[in-house]
Amino acid sequence: MMNRQQYFSKLNQVADDLAKSYADGVAVNPDNGDNLPRRDEVISVTEKLLELLFPGFDGRRSAGNPVALMAEIHQELSGQICRATRCFTQCRDCGKGCEDNCDEIAFSLLSCLSSLREIIKADVAAAYAGDPAATGFEEIVLSYPGIKATSIQRLAHVLYCAKVPFLPRMMTEYAHSMTGIDIHPGAKLGKGIFIDHGTGVVIGETAQLGDNVRIYQGVTLGAANFPKDACGMLIKGRKRHPTIGNNVTIYSGASVLGDVTIGDDSVIGGNVWLTESLPAGTKITARPPENHLKFAEDR
Amino acid sequence: MMNRQQYFSKLNQVADDLAKSYADGVAVNPDNGDNLPRRDEVISVTEKLLELLFPGFDGRRSAGNPVALMAEIHQELSGQICRATRCFTQCRDCGKGCEDNCDEIAFSLLSCLSSLREIIKADVAAAYAGDPAATGFEEIVLSYPGIKATSIQRLAHVLYCAKVPFLPRMMTEYAHSMTGIDIHPGAKLGKGIFIDHGTGVVIGETAQLGDNVRIYQGVTLGAANFPKDACGMLIKGRKRHPTIGNNVTIYSGASVLGDVTIGDDSVIGGNVWLTESLPAGTKITARPPENHLKFAEDR
Amino acid sequence: MMNRQQYFSKLNQVADDLAKSYADGVAVNPDNGDNLPRRDEVISVTEKLLELLFPGFDGRRSAGNPVALMAEIHQELSGQICRATRCFTQCRDCGKGCEDNCDEIAFSLLSCLSSLREIIKADVAAAYAGDPAATGFEEIVLSYPGIKATSIQRLAHVLYCAKVPFLPRMMTEYAHSMTGIDIHPGAKLGKGIFIDHGTGVVIGETAQLGDNVRIYQGVTLGAANFPKDACGMLIKGRKRHPTIGNNVTIYSGASVLGDVTIGDDSVIGGNVWLTESLPAGTKITARPPENHLKFAEDR
Repeated sequence: MMNRQQYFSKLNQVADDLAKSYADGVAVNPDNGDNLPRRDEVISVTEKLLELLFPGFDGRRSAGNPVALMAEIHQELSGQICRATRCFTQCRDCGKGCEDNCDEIAFSLLSCLSSLREIIKADVAAAYAGDPAATGFEEIVLSYPGIKATSIQRLAHVLYCAKVPFLPRMMTEYAHSMTGIDIHPGAKLGKGIFIDHGTGVVIGETAQLGDNVRIYQGVTLGAANFPKDACGMLIKGRKRHPTIGNNVTIYSGASVLGDVTIGDDSVIGGNVWLTESLPAGTKITARPPENHLKFAEDR
Repeated sequence: MMNRQQYFSKLNQVADDLAKSYADGVAVNPDNGDNLPRRDEVISVTEKLLELLFPGFDGRRSAGNPVALMAEIHQELSGQICRATRCFTQCRDCGKGCEDNCDEIAFSLLSCLSSLREIIKADVAAAYAGDPAATGFEEIVLSYPGIKATSIQRLAHVLYCAKVPFLPRMMTEYAHSMTGIDIHPGAKLGKGIFIDHGTGVVIGETAQLGDNVRIYQGVTLGAANFPKDACGMLIKGRKRHPTIGNNVTIYSGASVLGDVTIGDDSVIGGNVWLTESLPAGTKITARPPENHLKFAEDR
Repeated sequence: MMNRQQYFSKLNQVADDLAKSYADGVAVNPDNGDNLPRRDEVISVTEKLLELLFPGFDGRRSAGNPVALMAEIHQELSGQICRATRCFTQCRDCGKGCEDNCDEIAFSLLSCLSSLREIIKADVAAAYAGDPAATGFEEIVLSYPGIKATSIQRLAHVLYCAKVPFLPRMMTEYAHSMTGIDIHPGAKLGKGIFIDHGTGVVIGETAQLGDNVRIYQGVTLGAANFPKDACGMLIKGRKRHPTIGNNVTIYSGASVLGDVTIGDDSVIGGNVWLTESLPAGTKITARPPENHLKFAEDR
């Protein structure tokens, strides 16, 4: 058993070792805590943006004129965009131009909200039309994880298009954490998207979805392979995920992989594994009970 | 770069546009913040109900007489039931009858708790009997997501049966968010239910589970198809999910779809896709390694 | 409608019934709230340990000398280890020896942190090398769920090896709740582990992973069967999960079950269901489109 002095001496030793290991700079805030976006503030801004999209739906506020909340969000979001940009570009004091640009990007997101509402209305209507258990629009907004995940992705996508580093992915990862639905902020979603249940859904960075696409739990719209350059490094940035047409339904557990195109009005059955394009109107299903086999022994 | 005056002028413009878009009433609290159940309070009440079921298990309280906590829950839950009911029925001032009814429903949930504990004891025992990694009952209650998800669903089901709008689904969606297990509040669960790991499990509104059912991650007990009425609208309310007998085990990734019946003592193997009923004692597994193929090239 | 007196009388009755049901001791804190680890403190200590591993990455602190935070963690963690140990061993006042041992275990976890950082550096590098969407190491640490899940498991594994009850599983269940990735604290992970997307991943207690293993969403490394003893009770403690070699990739939805060995440099395709060992360098994939079937009618 250590006495108090021995304890502090050993603790200091261990702390010194750890501090030394920080010198490699990996997974370490490179300078000080001011440089990185703050996770708690990114989440807080995201929740406030949802409040603007669904006014009053957390039951705390009514849907009056949102100017005060908008001004609050603008300031906070702009600040986080600055932190993210400076950290990404390793700029410590890039001057005024940077801040103005961050202000502008934050403003442009606020300007999108009324048109995003039109798109999300179509999402809510699609959920009501697609789920026999839905009792009404309010229930969908109050409790359907798909609406939360796609709405946050739509917000993050605006920042992604403005080339804001870190924040878009932090926002969609927040949605992923809450819903199990992992949509990369780069994915392009049409209107009237309904993701039901949603746990395990993965939609990759360069995926494109048309209008009125319905997706169930466990669906992957992913990459099929990962080409490398001459140095053996992954090639980044190319289109590597599916393009899904309008009015397509993809049932639970299906995987559509690679830069393939699924034509309008197609239906992809549960557990289908697909790495090819399909013409419009195709209905495809995994082979049914033939590949089942009864067995008698206990497992 | 905007000056301060230009900024506020543009912000007001953007806020006005958004406020106008609220006039459609979609995804908008229809009157004011008093009408909708508050998500944070619904979660808080749910956690307090869990505290009554598992006294002391968050380590903060001991298991004395629960009357004070019950009175607290009664008041809060009754208030949320009122909000939910008024919002759903679009009643703004429905008078005393409504509040009395809400009080009664809240009370009836509290009255169920001691019998729910008997059922949940069987769930905990089933988890211990079914998982070689379980060290004891305490560990299961402290850290098994399946117990959390089924317990919250059992609470929500009481409110669902009392036709409380919104709250039951908000409660199960809270459980879904924490555990990845999505059980509709309408599902009827027997006793001794063990959902292991659980991420991606989906159990639909009209599913029925007997006693001692064991379910692994990624299992869907879902609907097979979605009949529409003459107007092309989904028919709501009919039985469309499976009925599972007693002592049935369903391994990871299996899907059982439609209003089918799985007889007692059946075992459904991993990844099985099933849309037919099975007689009691059936053991069924997906076709094994024949449908595997080695390949030589790198992907 | 009840009057106030009737209400309190009925509430007391219901509370008495519930209090009586606590006498069975199941799912009940056996003595008082001091005996069980507190979930909120376990989560708080876990987050602080992550802060030591990734200094400054929540954006709140910079990466100075961590001695103060270490002392804080030491005290809190030691306290929770004591609570867990006493509850597990049903010891109410086991005296000083117990506390010293708890202090030592907490200290040994802190002593591991600098070497854990070396391992986690390899994890981050593996994520960057394996994901075309990754823009850099910072993004991975800020927002990739796989890093969070494996890092928490690595911390929990240290306590698991020291035979601390409850806490390791509470920590990994916290990670599971946030990420959908369920790695038992007993699993042995090599370095350079990358779990992409991750929702639905299950890695069992006796699984072993070599270095540079890449795993996608929905992968199970589980048990194949559950042998029972003469009394019909599950046999606990034996090796029942896979051993995965170095440089193995396992694509989404694959299941590897039982105490099998997957040789180095193997690739297991999406949705493969495997219950046998594979020699080094094997590439295996589920049978492709032959088992798909187009169909014409609407579902």
